[in-house]
Amino acid sequence: MNTANWLSGDSIRWLNAGGPLQEVVLSSRVRLARNLAGFPFLSRADEGQRRQIYRQMYERLTQLPIGADLAFVDINETPYLDRQLLVERHLISRQHAEGEGTRGVALSREETIALMINEEDHLRIQVMGCGLCLEELWQQIDQIDNQLHSVVDFAFNDQYGYLTACPTNVGTGIRVSVMLHLPALKLVGELEKVSRAAKDMHLAVRGLHGEGTEAIGDFYQVSNQITLGKSETEIISEFCSVMVPKIVEYEKLAREVLMRERPAAIEDKIWRAFGLLENARTISTEESLYLLSHLRMGIHLGRVANIPLNTINDLFIQTQPAHLQKLSGMIMDGEARSVARAELIRRRLNNNNN
Amino acid sequence: MNTANWLSGDSIRWLNAGGPLQEVVLSSRVRLARNLAGFPFLSRADEGQRRQIYRQMYERLTQLPIGADLAFVDINETPYLDRQLLVERHLISRQHAEGEGTRGVALSREETIALMINEEDHLRIQVMGCGLCLEELWQQIDQIDNQLHSVVDFAFNDQYGYLTACPTNVGTGIRVSVMLHLPALKLVGELEKVSRAAKDMHLAVRGLHGEGTEAIGDFYQVSNQITLGKSETEIISEFCSVMVPKIVEYEKLAREVLMRERPAAIEDKIWRAFGLLENARTISTEESLYLLSHLRMGIHLGRVANIPLNTINDLFIQTQPAHLQKLSGMIMDGEARSVARAELIRRRLNNNNN
Repeated sequence: MNTANWLSGDSIRWLNAGGPLQEVVLSSRVRLARNLAGFPFLSRADEGQRRQIYRQMYERLTQLPIGADLAFVDINETPYLDRQLLVERHLISRQHAEGEGTRGVALSREETIALMINEEDHLRIQVMGCGLCLEELWQQIDQIDNQLHSVVDFAFNDQYGYLTACPTNVGTGIRVSVMLHLPALKLVGELEKVSRAAKDMHLAVRGLHGEGTEAIGDFYQVSNQITLGKSETEIISEFCSVMVPKIVEYEKLAREVLMRERPAAIEDKIWRAFGLLENARTISTEESLYLLSHLRMGIHLGRVANIPLNTINDLFIQTQPAHLQKLSGMIMDGEARSVARAELIRRRLNNNNN
Repeated sequence: MNTANWLSGDSIRWLNAGGPLQEVVLSSRVRLARNLAGFPFLSRADEGQRRQIYRQMYERLTQLPIGADLAFVDINETPYLDRQLLVERHLISRQHAEGEGTRGVALSREETIALMINEEDHLRIQVMGCGLCLEELWQQIDQIDNQLHSVVDFAFNDQYGYLTACPTNVGTGIRVSVMLHLPALKLVGELEKVSRAAKDMHLAVRGLHGEGTEAIGDFYQVSNQITLGKSETEIISEFCSVMVPKIVEYEKLAREVLMRERPAAIEDKIWRAFGLLENARTISTEESLYLLSHLRMGIHLGRVANIPLNTINDLFIQTQPAHLQKLSGMIMDGEARSVARAELIRRRLNNNNN
C-alpha cells in the first residue's frame, strides 16, 4: 500500500472545498450492498469460500473499464496502522479493519471510489464526493453497478430485490449519507429538534464515523434507513431536494440569528478556537475536531480570513492517530500523539497565516 | 478624586516589575491599627464622634512631614464606582467601601501609602511595595507611626500594647502580608502541604482580596495572625528571612520539576493562556486572572518573550469591573464588561507584542 501521497498533506478529494452547500455539507456518500449468487452470506461462509469470493471479485473488477484505476489492498495482510489509516480516510469501515479472514478493498486513485470485499456483504461499493453531490454520485455508482452486472451474477429476488446479509439493506441495498456541520444549531439548542424531525422521516443521525459513534465537533452523518419499497432515484431525490436543503437552511438561519443577536458569543467561540489551535502544545483528537469545527464556521461566516478551508479539511483527517504516526514515521503513545498533533496544527495554520 | 492617571495604564507602583523575588512575590504590605485615646471604638461611636475622629485625623495628618504628599478622599461622599476603584487598587478594604458614616482615606501620590480613617479602627496605616520588601516597608511605616505619635495620643495599654477594635490586632497592631503567585505548587498538587505548614506557623493563607475571598489565578495572600507577644521587627524578620523565602524556594523547585518532567504540559498551559487572552472576545474577571497568571509564569520561566511583566501586572488591576467602567466612561453590565475586558487585554497584549 503506497501511502506517500496520503501523508503529503494533499487535500482529500471528497473533502475538497468548493462542493455545493459546502458551508454545511462537508461530503456526500452513496454505497450499494451486493452479494454473489451461489455463495452463502459471509456469516455462514468458511475461509475457503471467502477466498473464492475475494478471488472472483478481484478478477471481475480488474476486467471492468474502471479496473485500471483501482488499487487492491489485501486487508488481512495489511499492518494495523495502515488499516487504521484507511478507516481514518473513510475508505473502509472499522469492522472491516478489525475483522478476520480474507478480505480487501479496491480504491480508485483519487480515493472517491472504494469497493470493500468481504465486509458484511460480499461487496460494498462506495463513492464519495465533496459538498452535496448525491445525484452525481448516484450516476457514478449506478454505472459501476451496471458494469459489474455484465460480469457478475448478484443474489437477487424478484419480490425483495437485492439480498443482503442484514435485512435493513435488502431491496435496493442503497445507503445514502451526508456529513453535516451543524455548530450553530448546536449553539442555539435546536439540534434535538432537527434530529427528531430527521428520525420522523426515517433518517438516521449519527457521529463522524457512522453507526455507534458520538457526534464530535458538531459533525453529524445523516443517512437513509429505508432500502425497501422506494427506488434508488426516489431516495436520492428526497434526500437532495427536501431533507438536506431543509437542514442546511435551518443551520444557516441559526448562524444568522447568532451573528445578529449574540455576535460577541459567536466571535468569541471562533477566536478562542483559533487561539487554542495556534498555541496549544498538546491536544486530543476530540478537542482538535471541536476547535477546527469552530474555525470552519468562522471561515464560512467570513470572520476568519487567511486560512484556506482545505487546510481545515486536511487537518480533520491528518490529526487522527494513525495519520500522525505515519507522518512522524514512528509508533507513538497517546501523550506523544497529542504533542505531535498540536505541532502539526500549529505548523499548518501558521503556514497559511503568513 | 482625580483618577485620570489611574486609568492611563501607568504601572501600579507597588506592583512594578523589579521587586526582590518577584518571580513569586508580587507585592508586600504592612499595616498598623491605631485608635485615638479618649474616643470609643467605632462599634460604639455615634456619627458625631465619627466626625470628630475624622476631623482630628485629617488635621493631624496634614501637619505631618508626609502630609503634603497626601490626598484625602471622603469615602461617604464618593460615588459607588470610585469606591470600587479604590478597592480594586487595594487602597481601601471592601468593608470600608461598603460601610456607612463619616470615613475616608488619605493616599500618597504614588499609592504606596494609604491611611484609612474610621474603618474598623480609627486609623489603619498601610504601606505597600513590589516584591518582597517588608523590611523597607517597616522602616517607612514606623517613621509614619513615629510622626503621628508626636501629634496624636493613641489608645495604649502598658500590659497589652495598642488597643484595637478586634482582639486579634491588640498588641503591636501589625499585619504583615505578601501576595504570592504559586501556579507550579498548585499544578504539582503541593499547595495544600505549603498551606498547612504556613498555618502551623500561625500564618493565614487567603485569596487575592484578603479575608473571606477565594484564591483566583493561583494568587495567595499570606499574613501573620499573631500580633501579641512578639515585637514588630521579630514578626517582620521571621516573615522575610524564614517563611517567605521557604515558600518561594518550594515554588521555584516545583517550576523546575515541571519544566524537566512535564515540559509539554507546562508549555501547553502557558501558550493556551496566551492564545485565549489574545483571541477571546468576551472574558470574565476570574478567567482573566487565571490566564494572566499562567502567562506571568511563562514570562518568568523565559518561555514568553515580548510581553513586559508590567503589562501583565497592570492588567491584573485594569481588568477589574470598576476600572473597566471608568476606562470606558460608562456603566456596563456584566456582559458588556466581559466584552470590554477582552478588548482591553487584546489591545494591551498586541501593543507589546509588535
